[in-house]
Amino acid sequence: MMNYQNFFTAALERLQEERRYRVFADIERIAGQFPTALWHSPEGTRKITVWCSNDYLGMGQSRDVTRAMVETAWRLGTGAGGTRNISGNSHPIVELEAELADLHGKEAGLVFTSGYVSNQTGISTLAKLIPDCLILSDALNHNSMIEGVRQSGCDKVIFRHNDLDHLEELLKAAGDRPKLIVFESVYSMDGDIAPIHAICDLAERYNAMTYLDEVHAVGMYGPRGGGIAERDGAMHRVDVIEGTLGKAFGVMGGYLTGTKAVMDAIRSFAPGFIFTTALPPAVAAAATASIRHLKASGAERQKHQRQVARTKAVLAGVGIPVMDTVTHIVPVMVGNAEACKAASDRLLERHGIYIQPINYPTVPRGTERLRITPGPLHTDEHINALAAALVEVWTALKLPLQPKAQAAE
Amino acid sequence: MMNYQNFFTAALERLQEERRYRVFADIERIAGQFPTALWHSPEGTRKITVWCSNDYLGMGQSRDVTRAMVETAWRLGTGAGGTRNISGNSHPIVELEAELADLHGKEAGLVFTSGYVSNQTGISTLAKLIPDCLILSDALNHNSMIEGVRQSGCDKVIFRHNDLDHLEELLKAAGDRPKLIVFESVYSMDGDIAPIHAICDLAERYNAMTYLDEVHAVGMYGPRGGGIAERDGAMHRVDVIEGTLGKAFGVMGGYLTGTKAVMDAIRSFAPGFIFTTALPPAVAAAATASIRHLKASGAERQKHQRQVARTKAVLAGVGIPVMDTVTHIVPVMVGNAEACKAASDRLLERHGIYIQPINYPTVPRGTERLRITPGPLHTDEHINALAAALVEVWTALKLPLQPKAQAAE
Ligand SMILES: Cc1ncc(COP(=O)(O)O)c(C=O)c1O
Ligand SMILES: Cc1ncc(COP(=O)(O)O)c(C=O)c1O
Repeated sequence: MMNYQNFFTAALERLQEERRYRVFADIERIAGQFPTALWHSPEGTRKITVWCSNDYLGMGQSRDVTRAMVETAWRLGTGAGGTRNISGNSHPIVELEAELADLHGKEAGLVFTSGYVSNQTGISTLAKLIPDCLILSDALNHNSMIEGVRQSGCDKVIFRHNDLDHLEELLKAAGDRPKLIVFESVYSMDGDIAPIHAICDLAERYNAMTYLDEVHAVGMYGPRGGGIAERDGAMHRVDVIEGTLGKAFGVMGGYLTGTKAVMDAIRSFAPGFIFTTALPPAVAAAATASIRHLKASGAERQKHQRQVARTKAVLAGVGIPVMDTVTHIVPVMVGNAEACKAASDRLLERHGIYIQPINYPTVPRGTERLRITPGPLHTDEHINALAAALVEVWTALKLPLQPKAQAAE
Repeated sequence: MMNYQNFFTAALERLQEERRYRVFADIERIAGQFPTALWHSPEGTRKITVWCSNDYLGMGQSRDVTRAMVETAWRLGTGAGGTRNISGNSHPIVELEAELADLHGKEAGLVFTSGYVSNQTGISTLAKLIPDCLILSDALNHNSMIEGVRQSGCDKVIFRHNDLDHLEELLKAAGDRPKLIVFESVYSMDGDIAPIHAICDLAERYNAMTYLDEVHAVGMYGPRGGGIAERDGAMHRVDVIEGTLGKAFGVMGGYLTGTKAVMDAIRSFAPGFIFTTALPPAVAAAATASIRHLKASGAERQKHQRQVARTKAVLAGVGIPVMDTVTHIVPVMVGNAEACKAASDRLLERHGIYIQPINYPTVPRGTERLRITPGPLHTDEHINALAAALVEVWTALKLPLQPKAQAAE
């Protein structure tokens, strides 16, 4: 007979053996000092530099964004008090949805408790509503999209990552049936970008709907922070654009934008939207403040791009094997879970630099990496200190350095 | 060939025809004045009384809870900045998990972005991990639990709502294989309560694990607000207790509590936990403040129970068909979608009383109802005004009043 407790204990031991057991670093951010933070370690509390945050632009500590949260909390309280339908609809969330629709040039926006939920319940509801829908899904899509595809119960085919020929082949083979292409703009672990226009060309040719996850692009690309589709002038061609309020916008929550009919249909049928407490008014107001700021100001985006380029150049200059990316994401390949964890531990303990190891299931086994996310608030001194620390760690752990392609500036 | 836009427009027209199209009331809460709020209607802004909030105890406007949110936002910023594993673990969320474990007398707690997500990813992960698991699920379980069961891909059987004989029959038929019983304590649309001890007796006899949703009970029942299982002295018998931070605790988020091994396994494998931005530190701190307050203070719970009993008695006294419940939830059966919506509209427009109609898919068709949630901040005058308004509406809409069983007090 099953002994449940022993079973779970054994499952965790296996995880430990595979070096996949995760210990979360207990980090305390300090508003106004990002990327500096406090690390509560078993040996006491230390100041560290965070190099792996997805608060990409530091908006999570912006005074204007914080003020919006604080003022709304004092005015309206801390919670929504219900689902959107049952007493949880608040004025700030209505305003936020209008702001998001405007950001992406769409008729309507719809807010969810997270980007994860917006993908899972959004994709599954959309595909389920369309009769006999075939989903065409990029091979590197995020787990939240995969779960959405799965939950829809629809037929699905996977196209090779960013491979237009393969996508076309599959579209052609599908014939006349309704089709939904789901893909991302910035793929967050490799830092590459989808050819949005070309995918929309195919969608038009074969009469498919398009669903685009811009989670790692909103706020950061395009003249108003509308994402890669805005930058590329392709926003109007994509049917549904999904994003998060928890990364560059620095708060929490997720959303979809699209035509009024499509948003209304998802609003009316998506279980993950209907049956859950709405986002607190204070969170919605903070997100609106952040979006408005980044619509008007390009300064954070410019500084971001500068510090990203500089980080890539300085690390490559000292022989650290940075993956060649066209985005703000700077992965450094290690290639095995144990070394990746050892490098991360040594960076934190010796150098006060926090870069979480990225292991399976977040990336495939054998491609374990450090994922560095420079932001506009990382100074040139921070970058130099990072380069020196990485060289020390690479040397100590006997990891291969690359021939120095070029000296740093 | 499919015209997607026309398709969605037509789907929405069908929803309108079925009177199932939902229009969200645009409500603005006023901290310090709950249950009074502002209603932004097409004709202008009006003060109304909210009678359908799930901020059951009014903690969402508590000054202590708000202060915790505000102070933490100023100290740590507005967002977590990452997933729990990748730079989003914050000191306040670690404290919150310890507080939750203590609340339910368990070894460990695990926080999710919502109660919905905790159920969906918690149940599916738990059941998927256990080899050949059979899930036994109450027929009235919440959508988030149903989706969790579905997502697990495990075999499942549904037992009739709170029916111990049926549950035992199914447990017996299952034989030796591992089993997971999932159920709620307070069923939120009917207001009835599960026999927790008796279900645990069966679970022990047939070696099943138990998973209990206390979403509509935490904060409100038990000497420290641990829920119905605490009230009944059954907490230690339930393997996993799930709850929300978004209802009686007045903030947002969800959680599980249980043994360290089980929580650790879910933490390590649940996609809806791993692949999403963590709850903001300010939200976690507010939740902790609320839980701590309700652990120590019974005043809100006592006042709550008093006003609930009074509401039931006064409404029954004037002939309103209140369903007989043993909890704080006071459903008034209407039995058809159109009348239910008309009653709700008239209450709001004529009387400034906001009670959302509860229609399919939240309840079965033919059982449409008004769901009233009296709180400790509803005064006796509020209750009398509610009774008078309901009688006016019932009379105007020719809905059946009941023989007056007894006069109010
Ligand atoms: C591509 C992608 N989509 C969606 C999400 C989920 O967004 P959120 O963190 O708001 O849940 C993430 C990561 O968290 C992501 O990387
Ligand atoms: C029984 C039950 N479980 C879970 C949930 C979801 O909790 P949350 O609102 O925190 O997502 C709800 C309602 O919202 C519920 O009624």
